[in-house]
Amino acid sequence: MHKFVRKLLTAWRKLGLPFEGAGFIAAVSGGADSVGLLLALHDLRIRKKLKNRFVVAHFDHRLRGVESERDAQFVRELAEKLQFEFVCGKGEISKKGNLEQNARIARYGFLRETAEALGAYGILTAHTINDQAETFLLNLLRGSGALGLSGMKAVSAGGQVPGSGFQVSSFREEKHSRLSTLDSRLILVRPLLNWAKREDTKDFCRDCEIEFRNDAMNDDLRFSRVRVRKELIPKLQEFNPKIVETLARTADLLREEYIEGEETKSQRPNANDKYLVLKQLKMLSKSMLYKVLREWLKQKRGNLRGLELKHIEAIERLIVSRKSGKIVELPQGETVIKENGKLLFETKKH
Amino acid sequence: MHKFVRKLLTAWRKLGLPFEGAGFIAAVSGGADSVGLLLALHDLRIRKKLKNRFVVAHFDHRLRGVESERDAQFVRELAEKLQFEFVCGKGEISKKGNLEQNARIARYGFLRETAEALGAYGILTAHTINDQAETFLLNLLRGSGALGLSGMKAVSAGGQVPGSGFQVSSFREEKHSRLSTLDSRLILVRPLLNWAKREDTKDFCRDCEIEFRNDAMNDDLRFSRVRVRKELIPKLQEFNPKIVETLARTADLLREEYIEGEETKSQRPNANDKYLVLKQLKMLSKSMLYKVLREWLKQKRGNLRGLELKHIEAIERLIVSRKSGKIVELPQGETVIKENGKLLFETKKH
Repeated sequence: MHKFVRKLLTAWRKLGLPFEGAGFIAAVSGGADSVGLLLALHDLRIRKKLKNRFVVAHFDHRLRGVESERDAQFVRELAEKLQFEFVCGKGEISKKGNLEQNARIARYGFLRETAEALGAYGILTAHTINDQAETFLLNLLRGSGALGLSGMKAVSAGGQVPGSGFQVSSFREEKHSRLSTLDSRLILVRPLLNWAKREDTKDFCRDCEIEFRNDAMNDDLRFSRVRVRKELIPKLQEFNPKIVETLARTADLLREEYIEGEETKSQRPNANDKYLVLKQLKMLSKSMLYKVLREWLKQKRGNLRGLELKHIEAIERLIVSRKSGKIVELPQGETVIKENGKLLFETKKH
Repeated sequence: MHKFVRKLLTAWRKLGLPFEGAGFIAAVSGGADSVGLLLALHDLRIRKKLKNRFVVAHFDHRLRGVESERDAQFVRELAEKLQFEFVCGKGEISKKGNLEQNARIARYGFLRETAEALGAYGILTAHTINDQAETFLLNLLRGSGALGLSGMKAVSAGGQVPGSGFQVSSFREEKHSRLSTLDSRLILVRPLLNWAKREDTKDFCRDCEIEFRNDAMNDDLRFSRVRVRKELIPKLQEFNPKIVETLARTADLLREEYIEGEETKSQRPNANDKYLVLKQLKMLSKSMLYKVLREWLKQKRGNLRGLELKHIEAIERLIVSRKSGKIVELPQGETVIKENGKLLFETKKH
């Protein structure tokens, strides 16, 4: 099994997605990301790892004349070749206001209505780590604050899918039998988001010897997202070659801390505890774990000075891995020690 | 009164700093920021707006040979000219590890010990909005996470001043009488942080016809802070000309949300309330206010979708200003209305 396919399967499992009985709409533009996702889904279906019904959905924004039609034709042919059902929507995108946003709203409107019409369990999109990082930067530049800096989730409620107003055509009426569902609530799934970089999807397409389409808009420097990708990120890479991963991780952490963290505060172990029990820590989500560790260390140290993400990550490894030793060193000679199923905090010995 | 001086006085008042009886150590490197601060303090002292004792403290890192000595001489002469007491420290900075960090630790060690020796109330440093933005970017590039992205505070406890190990020399023994204090706990104050840009300090120095020193290290591209200032920020300005202010505000908000927000959660108005009472809201800190509004809106709307910082800011204006009208429009036709001393939430009328 190709590494890319194996990683998708792992992500599918981690996200708690159903392996059969629930249908998905896969949004495929024809670009490397969505073609890569489709190829991997195809592979998993052939291997009977995934027995879900998958319907390929393409939205033709009709913004680039004959090129738009060629994209639609390309996706249709690919879907047929791989024996996926295919649905195509066409939109008249308003040129008033933000074109990208109007296009996105129309596209998601189509995807959502298609999913609902087919009784699908969820919509799959091929967002990658790069999309997460680019969105983070766009929001940072825009000053949209903590809320906007919080990253996309790999699985979100369908209610969070933007959209309305579109035309559906080329709809295969005969395929409209409702898909079986495990849950009536539509979810939006980004199964590549946590692990795949854009390069990975391109490499996978090449390894499969399947072409993908290049959207000329992806090179149009009038779009701020394109300028972020082509001008800003390369500049940032001069400072940190892994900036894309770094920004995506930051967006993740901010979302977890801000939005998810708020709701489950009462369920956490107490920061005043003399020690933390490993078994309890292992049951926490990553976001909760980080919060608990931060609060516990703040309590023990009196402040959070000098404490960096790498320290928290090292303690996380201490908790989850048997191989990671027994001690994490913190600034100023302080340590966190794993002992008898517990985490203990020790200050510097004078 | 010069605008710069007036703004410093306003900041001094807003930060709740004492106008007399409490002594401060003013850290002056000789650069535009600290010289600007000193000139403004001088002006306020002449006008008897501030009656505190101020002692100018300069730390000679001895990293740039004769230039270092000239800086010290420059600050000494300026202090004498303006009739400030003057203290100079000299350090042997270890070249092992991070030079900038070693220099900072030595400098703050000197400032702290000087302040303690003189029984000062606080230490003043001349950090500007630009320093806040640069620090934010350095931490973002480093991937230091939410904690690291939280900005500096305009007033922080002295315990948060880094430092140890230094030599004090050229100390004016006769000035060592203890300053009167309002509080035995040393604070670190950055009175320019919330409003002054680096350009403002330069302009103010020029308007006063007082020269300032240029530290050659400020142009040394081997330092990542210098590269952030000279290469990254100009690139970011192509996307957002106000990026420095935007980043500083983001750093502020993240700190307020993360670190300060955590501790006072129990004191907040309840997000389940049908309406929010203006009088109660006005008593909250900005960070608390934002949190309360966010939670209240989440409760009312079911989610935070489409909600941006600008909406929260508009509601804040609604609360604090009489001139701001009675309604803030939110996405999807929802509104927040000010009525009879309360904030009400209304959904779209169908």
